[in-house]
Amino acid sequence: MTRFPDIKPTTQRVVIEAVTPSVDDGRFAAKRIVGDRVTVEADVFGDGHDHVSSEVQYRVAGSGRWKTVPMEPLAMDRRRGSFNVDRPGGHEFRVRGWIDHFDTWRDGLEKKVGAGQDVSVDLQIGADLVVDAADRADGDDAEALSEFAARIGDATATDDERVAAALEPDLSALLYAWGDRSMATITPAFPLWVDRTRARFSSWYELFPRSWGAPGSHGTFADVAEKLDYVAEMGFDVLYLPPIHPIGVTMRKGPNNSLDASPEDPGVPWAVGSSDGGHLAINPKLGTLDDFRALRKRAESLGIELAMDIAFQCSPDHPWVTEHPEWFKHRPDGSIQYAENPPKRYEDIYPIDFETSDPEGLWEALRDVFLYWIDQGVEIFRVDNPHTKAFPFWEWVIAQVTERHPGAIFLAEAFTRPTVMHRLAKAGFTQSYTYFTWRNTAWELKTYMEDLSAVSDFLRPNFWPNTPDILPQYLQNGGRPAFIARAILAAMLSSNYGVYGPEFELMGNTPRAPGSEEYLDSEKYQIREWDLDRADSLAPLLGRLNQIRHDHASLQRTDNITFHPIDNQDILCFSKEWEDDLVLVVVNLDPHHTQSGYIQLPLEEMGIAEHSSFQVHDLLTDRRFLWNDRWNYVELDPTGIPAHVFAVRKLVRTEHDFDYYL
Amino acid sequence: MTRFPDIKPTTQRVVIEAVTPSVDDGRFAAKRIVGDRVTVEADVFGDGHDHVSSEVQYRVAGSGRWKTVPMEPLAMDRRRGSFNVDRPGGHEFRVRGWIDHFDTWRDGLEKKVGAGQDVSVDLQIGADLVVDAADRADGDDAEALSEFAARIGDATATDDERVAAALEPDLSALLYAWGDRSMATITPAFPLWVDRTRARFSSWYELFPRSWGAPGSHGTFADVAEKLDYVAEMGFDVLYLPPIHPIGVTMRKGPNNSLDASPEDPGVPWAVGSSDGGHLAINPKLGTLDDFRALRKRAESLGIELAMDIAFQCSPDHPWVTEHPEWFKHRPDGSIQYAENPPKRYEDIYPIDFETSDPEGLWEALRDVFLYWIDQGVEIFRVDNPHTKAFPFWEWVIAQVTERHPGAIFLAEAFTRPTVMHRLAKAGFTQSYTYFTWRNTAWELKTYMEDLSAVSDFLRPNFWPNTPDILPQYLQNGGRPAFIARAILAAMLSSNYGVYGPEFELMGNTPRAPGSEEYLDSEKYQIREWDLDRADSLAPLLGRLNQIRHDHASLQRTDNITFHPIDNQDILCFSKEWEDDLVLVVVNLDPHHTQSGYIQLPLEEMGIAEHSSFQVHDLLTDRRFLWNDRWNYVELDPTGIPAHVFAVRKLVRTEHDFDYYL
Repeated sequence: MTRFPDIKPTTQRVVIEAVTPSVDDGRFAAKRIVGDRVTVEADVFGDGHDHVSSEVQYRVAGSGRWKTVPMEPLAMDRRRGSFNVDRPGGHEFRVRGWIDHFDTWRDGLEKKVGAGQDVSVDLQIGADLVVDAADRADGDDAEALSEFAARIGDATATDDERVAAALEPDLSALLYAWGDRSMATITPAFPLWVDRTRARFSSWYELFPRSWGAPGSHGTFADVAEKLDYVAEMGFDVLYLPPIHPIGVTMRKGPNNSLDASPEDPGVPWAVGSSDGGHLAINPKLGTLDDFRALRKRAESLGIELAMDIAFQCSPDHPWVTEHPEWFKHRPDGSIQYAENPPKRYEDIYPIDFETSDPEGLWEALRDVFLYWIDQGVEIFRVDNPHTKAFPFWEWVIAQVTERHPGAIFLAEAFTRPTVMHRLAKAGFTQSYTYFTWRNTAWELKTYMEDLSAVSDFLRPNFWPNTPDILPQYLQNGGRPAFIARAILAAMLSSNYGVYGPEFELMGNTPRAPGSEEYLDSEKYQIREWDLDRADSLAPLLGRLNQIRHDHASLQRTDNITFHPIDNQDILCFSKEWEDDLVLVVVNLDPHHTQSGYIQLPLEEMGIAEHSSFQVHDLLTDRRFLWNDRWNYVELDPTGIPAHVFAVRKLVRTEHDFDYYL
Repeated sequence: MTRFPDIKPTTQRVVIEAVTPSVDDGRFAAKRIVGDRVTVEADVFGDGHDHVSSEVQYRVAGSGRWKTVPMEPLAMDRRRGSFNVDRPGGHEFRVRGWIDHFDTWRDGLEKKVGAGQDVSVDLQIGADLVVDAADRADGDDAEALSEFAARIGDATATDDERVAAALEPDLSALLYAWGDRSMATITPAFPLWVDRTRARFSSWYELFPRSWGAPGSHGTFADVAEKLDYVAEMGFDVLYLPPIHPIGVTMRKGPNNSLDASPEDPGVPWAVGSSDGGHLAINPKLGTLDDFRALRKRAESLGIELAMDIAFQCSPDHPWVTEHPEWFKHRPDGSIQYAENPPKRYEDIYPIDFETSDPEGLWEALRDVFLYWIDQGVEIFRVDNPHTKAFPFWEWVIAQVTERHPGAIFLAEAFTRPTVMHRLAKAGFTQSYTYFTWRNTAWELKTYMEDLSAVSDFLRPNFWPNTPDILPQYLQNGGRPAFIARAILAAMLSSNYGVYGPEFELMGNTPRAPGSEEYLDSEKYQIREWDLDRADSLAPLLGRLNQIRHDHASLQRTDNITFHPIDNQDILCFSKEWEDDLVLVVVNLDPHHTQSGYIQLPLEEMGIAEHSSFQVHDLLTDRRFLWNDRWNYVELDPTGIPAHVFAVRKLVRTEHDFDYYL
């Protein structure tokens, strides 16, 4: 990066610019999933009128030979080529472009012949180009090219015959394969990270195992395993557990974050480590490593994957505090610096000091935490507050882990400024928590989806209507209709979403204090008892939503959303489309009043002829409607289900065909 | 650019992203002019709550020590620092950011004291930080820091006294100067090219010297020198001459591009080279090198700089054709390949082959053309069709020339696709021809100015209402009002503009054929005679416009334009502001009818209180109006002057102050 890169006289004439997908000009990897078709675009051009050809080259990162696919011209100088990725891990691609003298010549020949010009010298030029290609080719191609060269150069044939030979498509194909690339321009390699499918399509359920035991007792992994059908019946495929490690005793917090915990209080799981061990140990009250493995196995049998919470911080009782004092900051009085955000203090937590004198030892130990749990069969990690640990560490550790286990998934729990959230995603986090939790109005949701779409090459959102830390105002005040609306929005807007239960499905909405977003009697500090069989539970609705997500490919990605105009700002209307699947969602955002309005649908984009009928099938209520206009009336009552989730079926032709859809 | 850059465990915690100005992430230089204040911005942030400080470092490219300027926080993580550039040539800057432990500590101390917390240990921590800074400092600073450390660490003093010492602004300044930067993050250097003022503010007049002689004779440099007052009176400061080299004889074109030139026809100046010489020679009919030098000197005395036309192509008679056959493409019949765009042929032109076997020899010879003419006192070059020569060559040659002569100016004559025009500007061209020539409606002009503003870091537009190649339809059909409107638009929208005269001021508007944009009897092919004294000439108008541009700083740049709403789409209204200068331009774009409407002005942005009076002074007619509302009526008659160019004077307070402006 100097004023004038060290350019030497050269005959490379092709420029390649604005390559996509590209994150910070190739500094970070763009993200895709297995089975994706990766579409690469670039501006490729040369000086003057000569034709330019280009191709995408791609390979598994660091492997040998590049595979190639030709690029097709789009508008202006934009070109596009695409390839499939079929295994997780690092890939790379680059673009090669060159002046295509044969194609330039062939096109000129055609035009000159069309204008009745003499082309005898042109034919000789062409024959020479083909001879050169024959010299580069081998086997049958070399022979075929030599034959073409002879026919084009044959002075005894008529010009018509020679021109006909020059214009044969077979010859163009041979020249594409064996044309002169010696002056080609090649871009640097752009990195691409390919994840397994669950990176893009996952439904999370978070629970505190300690609340799942018999009343009055500390729940265990075995209790969760026993009740796991409850989660499976709702259709969730990721079960996320807060930290399962021993919990510190020193400065332990009591119910509602009180400073005077009694010996019976179970403590905050995020105060990791005690004399029973640290990040590699299990809280004995939850069970043993074998119990954990049994839970994992049971979950697996139900199609559920376990996700662990990795919180890189220590209670004062964590073994590292004495074994590795150099990983912590020390105060002049000999104590270790606790976490603080003055004037707030968190004396039960010692943050790790990323300015340690031993970064190698620290980083490797943290990496080994991930590797250890992967060895126990866990590949999904929800990382606690990653934005309070050094960014280069995340880039390094995710690289280190995914190099060995390309299926590992990392969810970044960072509710902070966009720059920071984006940087963590660039550094390698597979999924990211988002601001969805606080986006309530139609305008807020629409603009937020647009913001996310601008970063979709590297940031995959995961939408949570609540978490153990966040009971948003909308849920506090909106009652049951608010919970239903937020569940539908999360599950339909984003292909990755999750809820913290059973608070969510049981519609817990009492804050610790007015104006607070903390839950009263939060499970973070105490054991709770849950009545999972309550008649008004939203568990069946969550099960329905997850079934719909499972059945509809368009809901298994987040980059395919279109918002539709409606003449009522309390209603949000959007659709998602993927291949043949089209889902239309209409949600009343007002939990207190019935709202109605006319939706305007872009029939032409949906492939529906104006005034022809199409069926919308409400997957929540199983009701069907026949629509036949671009303007359609909806009315949503919050005392019922304040939303439609329509499968749109375009093939309704006449009433006689109607049975086809039943 | 690999999947995972080779990151090693580190204690660097600061991230720096999105640095501006930056062209293709620092691959090319951003452009500024001498005297500019360069404003650098970046997102700078670290993990957690620690405070981050940052600075811009800058220097003349390749020189020794970096100078530094602190960056101030903007919104979120954005920060800004700025510095002046005062000499032409290459510069570079970078951004350095670090965790500022002292500032973090000082802020925390203040908050803890405010909350009534015990800070005795904190004071000891701070004293240690100050001792460390004292160790890094030298001279008086070291002593001052040691004293502060003693006061803060003084266990015999009260906490209040110790806190007071810690919060002294002098200490913060010392800690900023001597804080620990050992873990700082530094970006790569970003290049910045600084041009002289004329790169951004220039008024061009193009003429064919051969038409400026006595009737019936071939005009000469001496003729132009004699009539140069005409150009000077119009206020132009760049006199641009089409190629002045010997013109080829072989396949010479006659009037109106005819193929059968007679021996008397003067030929096309862009068919460069004959037995009289090539790009280093002068067409003997124009005069000698001494005559050229005399013209240059005469121009200089009138404040006019000469601009040469550099067309890197050869007539078949150019000496290079025989001296350097390897610089041209050869056909199998032994002939040299002429220019063609099938089925069109340009047999009087041999293009240079940038795939030559001798790129070094060729590039150096072309570079030496620029260097030769710079030795003759010319520093401005209008480069003909640069997009038909290799892009890397331009990057190299402009670097080679400007390294020796940082005042050299290159205008790219490329009317082609945006990608290509942008690439040439990035490669180093100082100014660029634009699509202004074909942008006529208010919407077209407004969106085009927006397009240009998106690339203003590297592309400086130069607006031409006509050229010897282009007589646009609007001028063909709009008569005198069209010429006036286009002159005003070019001169007011863009700080660089030019006209091809005397066709322009004499309102020549006859195309060679209906539908053609070529001039009839174009000077490209023949000598013309001009009646410069015609009563209806627009020369006085051009003089007025150039005087206005000279007097108003806001018209000497192009990045300061604001368009204003008006309820008539045939009227364009915009203003330009720079420091105290504010110019408001209103143009009737309809050359056939009077148009009127209400302009809406953003009074608050203009610093004018609602309903207070302000004066608008029409610089074209010298009429003054007192306005006092945000809505103001205008009516523009194309039979008069179809535009206002208002100087806006904000200081009109009451009628008693009015004399002040008279």
